[in-house]
Amino acid sequence: MIYFDNAATTFPKPKSVVKNMVYFMEKCSANPGRGGHKLSRIAGQKIRDSRENIADFFNINDFKRLIFTLNDTYALNMAIHGVLKPGDHVITTVYEHNSIIRPLMKLSKTGVEVTILEGNMRGEISFKKLTECIQPNTKILATCIASNALGNIMPVEEIGRICREANILLLIDAAQGAGVLPINVEKMNIDLLAVPGHKSLYGPMGTGFLYIGERAIVDDIIQGGTGTLSEKIEQPQDFPTRYESGTINAVGIWGLNAGVNFVRKVGIDRIRKHEDRLTEFLIEGLSCIGGVKIMGEEMKERVPIVSFNIRDIHSMKVAKILDKRYDIATRGGLHCAGLFHKMADTLKQGAVRVSPGFFNTREEASKFLKAIRHIAKELK
Amino acid sequence: MIYFDNAATTFPKPKSVVKNMVYFMEKCSANPGRGGHKLSRIAGQKIRDSRENIADFFNINDFKRLIFTLNDTYALNMAIHGVLKPGDHVITTVYEHNSIIRPLMKLSKTGVEVTILEGNMRGEISFKKLTECIQPNTKILATCIASNALGNIMPVEEIGRICREANILLLIDAAQGAGVLPINVEKMNIDLLAVPGHKSLYGPMGTGFLYIGERAIVDDIIQGGTGTLSEKIEQPQDFPTRYESGTINAVGIWGLNAGVNFVRKVGIDRIRKHEDRLTEFLIEGLSCIGGVKIMGEEMKERVPIVSFNIRDIHSMKVAKILDKRYDIATRGGLHCAGLFHKMADTLKQGAVRVSPGFFNTREEASKFLKAIRHIAKELK
Repeated sequence: MIYFDNAATTFPKPKSVVKNMVYFMEKCSANPGRGGHKLSRIAGQKIRDSRENIADFFNINDFKRLIFTLNDTYALNMAIHGVLKPGDHVITTVYEHNSIIRPLMKLSKTGVEVTILEGNMRGEISFKKLTECIQPNTKILATCIASNALGNIMPVEEIGRICREANILLLIDAAQGAGVLPINVEKMNIDLLAVPGHKSLYGPMGTGFLYIGERAIVDDIIQGGTGTLSEKIEQPQDFPTRYESGTINAVGIWGLNAGVNFVRKVGIDRIRKHEDRLTEFLIEGLSCIGGVKIMGEEMKERVPIVSFNIRDIHSMKVAKILDKRYDIATRGGLHCAGLFHKMADTLKQGAVRVSPGFFNTREEASKFLKAIRHIAKELK
Repeated sequence: MIYFDNAATTFPKPKSVVKNMVYFMEKCSANPGRGGHKLSRIAGQKIRDSRENIADFFNINDFKRLIFTLNDTYALNMAIHGVLKPGDHVITTVYEHNSIIRPLMKLSKTGVEVTILEGNMRGEISFKKLTECIQPNTKILATCIASNALGNIMPVEEIGRICREANILLLIDAAQGAGVLPINVEKMNIDLLAVPGHKSLYGPMGTGFLYIGERAIVDDIIQGGTGTLSEKIEQPQDFPTRYESGTINAVGIWGLNAGVNFVRKVGIDRIRKHEDRLTEFLIEGLSCIGGVKIMGEEMKERVPIVSFNIRDIHSMKVAKILDKRYDIATRGGLHCAGLFHKMADTLKQGAVRVSPGFFNTREEASKFLKAIRHIAKELK
């Protein structure tokens, strides 16, 4: 099988990730921070090490402000529901995943004002329009670092400067950026960073985190046992305890830590270079096939995501043929990005998304292109 | 090491749990339901199989009403925050873990009325008082199936009958009951069942679920991508999709499924018998040691949890000596059950909790008792 669905989750995972998980399960799977005994301390130390290591990777100064979550969606919800109150205003963009749009739509019914910045098929936004959108009650600007449908990279540093000047919190969804692009929360003025563990950080599913910067005041949306201050019937207020009620996914986090170490060891530059080359090769190849239309073909840079269609054939049909006949895994449909596909006028057709990862080869990309050539010819 | 902290998390796990997790990570770790390709379908089928299997174990008729969560605390919060609105009334008990008490305290600030039923050191509640507490606006009765501090088993069937008659939803926290006691949501009239995966179901940390019965109307507290109806910017309303936004902990769930199969294979009766014998042996042994006071010593039945103290020595000190000198893992402190310890007048001292599991032996229990004898003598 050729796996080109890395934007959904990376596969395969580095061996060290599985190794860490097995070690944890077999040797020290006690409840971290929930008992004073050796095994619990060892488990707790592994979580602490992971928290420090991952925080450092994103230049997060205070590692206690890194909150482990079930996934990126939970991290985004924690930030969105935890910050926004009725009467607040939030700005987002047309490129967002439903993990940002849907919680905002929910809040829009309780008196939160939502502005959705328009975009285009080159993946741009207008800084002028962004500035014009800002209101006295604007609390958050929420955007992805890169779109999961178009693959465009957002100008986070510029957006961060605008937000900081206007005293707005910047919430970044790094689903398609963490492990792919260098992310520095200080340099980029990121106040809230939501990250999945199982994509380009190569951790297992069931992991992710939210970084809460010092400027952000975030209410807890979940309360419960923290293993600390048990005599208090109210939620403790310290980091990360306040936001990590109940038993965390310790085995997953220890796996994620190995994933982050894999990225560190290989180097984000080398990963980026490899994925960039594959992406360019795919775009060049696809652009030569009659009837293929690549989304954002003219974009100068992108994350390793190429969405395209063959004439007016439904994307799911193409993805299905790729899977069944060629044993190539891609993804058809809308990729949880309805607003983008509305703009692209592909709400019905969707798009075939091919997303190479570090473990993909040029040979696999060639096989993929060959398959698309066949399909485009056959379905004429 | 002798591990007697199974109430925090069971250890070790059955080999089949780790085996399932490794298989998943290495062979089919694609995003379930997020792509139409083979690998995604295989992953999706494993999640479906797990959901069906686990639902069946609790006699849940519609397996789609089983919602996978990060842990028991998230499941409880999902139910509590999803059902209760300002003006509603909720009844709970003094035996509860902070995972019930803290979200209720949070809601009490927004106009939710909370009544806490009193108890005693025999683990009883008064049905008369419970009935008297019921108000026209009572929406939920929330209680554990067994206390994690005292080990008492709640009379869930009787409580369920009272709730059903009064048209109140019954929310059960099965943290210390799932896999230990037979749980049948139909027979017990349970409307909302919150379960951790990593305790006596022998799954990994990072897993758990909430069952939402047909009588319960639960708002979603998290919104996001569901891989379905992506064109809709509002949260889909179908089960389990509505409550499972973002990528689920697929590897953890497949591990949990193996844990549940382990419990099924061994048989809950056999597990109960073994744990009961160990528990009785521990209680008998402890009761003969001068200066040891067992909490709820006279209780006729309990889950495998024995909390005790040696005279007025701090529980953490005893647990520490057990760990350091005897390599025995127990837990001192309050076990996230402040209200119970207030009632027991042990808010300062806490209690040493010894919680045997299926993998513990009589020999280990003997060693533990010997250690306590030494400690009790030494600290005179």
